[in-house]
Amino acid sequence: MNLKVKLMNWSAGRPVAVLSRKLASRVNIHINDRVVLEKVGRKIVCVTDLSDTMVRDDEIAVSSEVLEELRLAENELLKVEPTAKPQSIYYIHKKLSGEQLTKEEINSIIEDIVSNALTQAEVAYFVSGVFNKGMTKEETIDLTESMADSGIKSNFSSPIIADKHSIGGIAGNRTTPIIVAICASTGLIMPKTSSRAITAAAGTADVVEVLCPVDFSYEKLKQIVEKIGACLAWGGSLGLAPADDKLIQVERLLNVDPEPQLLASIMSKKIAAGSTHIIIDIPYGFSAKVETKEEAKSLGKKFEELGEYFNMKVKTLLTDGSQPIGNGIGPCLEINDILKILHQKKDRPKDLEKKSLFLTAQLLELTGKAKKGRGLILATQMLKSGKALHKFKEIIEAQGGKVIEQKLPKINRDVFTDKNFKIKFIDNKKINELARLAGSPADKKAGVYLYKKRGDKLKKGEKIMTIYSESNEKLKNAWEYYISSKPIG
Amino acid sequence: MNLKVKLMNWSAGRPVAVLSRKLASRVNIHINDRVVLEKVGRKIVCVTDLSDTMVRDDEIAVSSEVLEELRLAENELLKVEPTAKPQSIYYIHKKLSGEQLTKEEINSIIEDIVSNALTQAEVAYFVSGVFNKGMTKEETIDLTESMADSGIKSNFSSPIIADKHSIGGIAGNRTTPIIVAICASTGLIMPKTSSRAITAAAGTADVVEVLCPVDFSYEKLKQIVEKIGACLAWGGSLGLAPADDKLIQVERLLNVDPEPQLLASIMSKKIAAGSTHIIIDIPYGFSAKVETKEEAKSLGKKFEELGEYFNMKVKTLLTDGSQPIGNGIGPCLEINDILKILHQKKDRPKDLEKKSLFLTAQLLELTGKAKKGRGLILATQMLKSGKALHKFKEIIEAQGGKVIEQKLPKINRDVFTDKNFKIKFIDNKKINELARLAGSPADKKAGVYLYKKRGDKLKKGEKIMTIYSESNEKLKNAWEYYISSKPIG
Repeated sequence: MNLKVKLMNWSAGRPVAVLSRKLASRVNIHINDRVVLEKVGRKIVCVTDLSDTMVRDDEIAVSSEVLEELRLAENELLKVEPTAKPQSIYYIHKKLSGEQLTKEEINSIIEDIVSNALTQAEVAYFVSGVFNKGMTKEETIDLTESMADSGIKSNFSSPIIADKHSIGGIAGNRTTPIIVAICASTGLIMPKTSSRAITAAAGTADVVEVLCPVDFSYEKLKQIVEKIGACLAWGGSLGLAPADDKLIQVERLLNVDPEPQLLASIMSKKIAAGSTHIIIDIPYGFSAKVETKEEAKSLGKKFEELGEYFNMKVKTLLTDGSQPIGNGIGPCLEINDILKILHQKKDRPKDLEKKSLFLTAQLLELTGKAKKGRGLILATQMLKSGKALHKFKEIIEAQGGKVIEQKLPKINRDVFTDKNFKIKFIDNKKINELARLAGSPADKKAGVYLYKKRGDKLKKGEKIMTIYSESNEKLKNAWEYYISSKPIG
Repeated sequence: MNLKVKLMNWSAGRPVAVLSRKLASRVNIHINDRVVLEKVGRKIVCVTDLSDTMVRDDEIAVSSEVLEELRLAENELLKVEPTAKPQSIYYIHKKLSGEQLTKEEINSIIEDIVSNALTQAEVAYFVSGVFNKGMTKEETIDLTESMADSGIKSNFSSPIIADKHSIGGIAGNRTTPIIVAICASTGLIMPKTSSRAITAAAGTADVVEVLCPVDFSYEKLKQIVEKIGACLAWGGSLGLAPADDKLIQVERLLNVDPEPQLLASIMSKKIAAGSTHIIIDIPYGFSAKVETKEEAKSLGKKFEELGEYFNMKVKTLLTDGSQPIGNGIGPCLEINDILKILHQKKDRPKDLEKKSLFLTAQLLELTGKAKKGRGLILATQMLKSGKALHKFKEIIEAQGGKVIEQKLPKINRDVFTDKNFKIKFIDNKKINELARLAGSPADKKAGVYLYKKRGDKLKKGEKIMTIYSESNEKLKNAWEYYISSKPIG
């Protein structure tokens, strides 16, 4: 049937359509049934709400998620049809029951996730199935390919597109902007896209956003990269592997991240981005995502196998993830760390610099920019000479911003030791949570500054960290969490 | 904060609140965040939608699900607070990871399901966990108790409250109204509540509703039972074990029904209903929910163990579930079968009568109404003498209806055999689906009438069934399904 669109200013977090009760009853559509809305060349699946007053019998009101997807105008005619339970439901049931899925079945699930034909609850069943029953190597390849094909594909003209990824989980650890600046200063093409924080104190996109916009259309991004050779953008709005974003939304509800999905999530984005040479940082250790070296090795091997299958040069690097890296945790605090390194200030965080140089060196060697064993020399040279800083400024300016050191908020609290002691551990998860409670990443200036690291000896009364916040209440919450959770011991 | 309620005529299928974007941003509430709405003595958790136009900064618009729960009036002040992820998320993660849950953890999950603090996706993770990792006997007991405690509890004064349950899955098989009529005619108290169909062609509530209303408040139901000794009501609106309804909503998305949940679902309703003596019908065989006798036995044992723990006399009966029982499948068709039996008409379905008498006899003996071995004699006597019919009329009239045989629709299609053959199977699931496609249970007169059963020999051109529908289109769909699915072979 055809219905007239009634525009509403209403965001529901998912595509929703409102029909009149009378119409719905006549055409046998019930509340929360799925309907397909179709406009020449575009389709979206919605859940149905009902009303006696919001719409007339010949009208359909839609949430902003539908408006954006279909680009609708008031009174435009829209084709509306009820749709049966998607076939992919049966494949999800298969996976939950421990059976192996075929390429076609995985495609069907991923397509239905992207078109919104599956609800979050149905996606949760899929995630549970993968979590509990795992996936074979073939299934993981199929899932990766399916997810890569679920959105647009990048087409940069360079034969070498350098990329870098960290599986995350470590507080601070903001190596990406440094690596991109150094690599791009050697002439490598590095159209780097990053995510925002999900459970961490900040993601690379949150951090770079302190200095400049990070949200671009694909066309604009291409212009920047063609001019500067690199970018530091948010990947979220580009439409690369959109199935992944919807899966992550559901995974974060319970904080589950099954390994096949982790692999497919990262590799599908790399394929869609057209990356050819990739280093993947797998930090492991106490309070990291991966706790043991064996697990890290096994995961690394799987990344490299997937890379080989998809004709990409992938090198995984197992790094120390047993404590935060860098001093600042939180967007402004982390950008200041980065600027200190690029400016080669005396008080720069040496652990972050060392790790960034190490990863850069590996990428320079992998791409052939440096000969085997010479990557570190080249990387260090680009950093010390100021060429990396120069390239960084070019990137930030091309994205419409300016490189400025960030002032920190007056609402803060220094934390002192109450006895002499030697630091045995700093818990990544707890430090992240502490920074989040202080307001990070939404409050850009909020977070934690660490003065000491594991192995450091402290005297009673010595300053161990400062908590920064934009509100007294959040500072209080963070402080209470610090006391109860003991992130440092 | 306090916000003024703005009434909207809007059903979203779940409690939803709409806040102004400006207010939401000020108090740091994001789209799809959970908020608690509180009115003296009542609370509900909602997800948040955002709008610039639907509400002002001091207003909150709510879906009808909230209105009904909190009984709100226009401009009433409502306390609105953001709420963190519930603790129960961690317990769901524990179960998904295969750990055993404590009583307190299960309580927390069930409370959050009832108060809507968990989304359907989070509930799906819980269902998946139970499906894949199972539950111990202790966990199943705790789950049952927790679910029974999640709503109101019945308090009939009689020391014996008789009850009957079937785990379902068999097309037709409408024994309940017959059992209730016979038992109540012997003086047993039997406040029977039943469900509507989820995936079947009809539930007992759908069938009884052909003759009279089935949707009562608990107070009204009590009045009926005190006067007549029995009722045949819909359990859905009574508020018995409401957690169960929300779990079932999520289970049906994927059509999963983990055994511990099946056990807890049924037994929690019985506990909340105050039942003391219960027979549970476990049909098994080809195309039934339980396929083998061993599974049926094992399930039966678990029901009886749970009953023992909760001080209820529970007897499970393993019956033949390998084909439909009775001739009619669909609300009106099934009620006609029942009336034929109560009126002892010649063309009554003998298989349905036999099974009903058998189950009744067991319940009469279990409750002590009949001595061991004498139940069948008493049951048959009450049926043949017309006393059961008389009691059935009393129940239907007390519920505001009248006992009338139902006319069937003119839109129908007879199905004939195209060769001589002997029926080897009749598939319950396919017959149910066939009746549903014809319009059952929403279209009360739609469904299937079977003339033959397994073992019957048919000649070419003999009538095997009639499909009834209220629309030519649905009849066509049903017919096409018949041809492609071959429900009888």
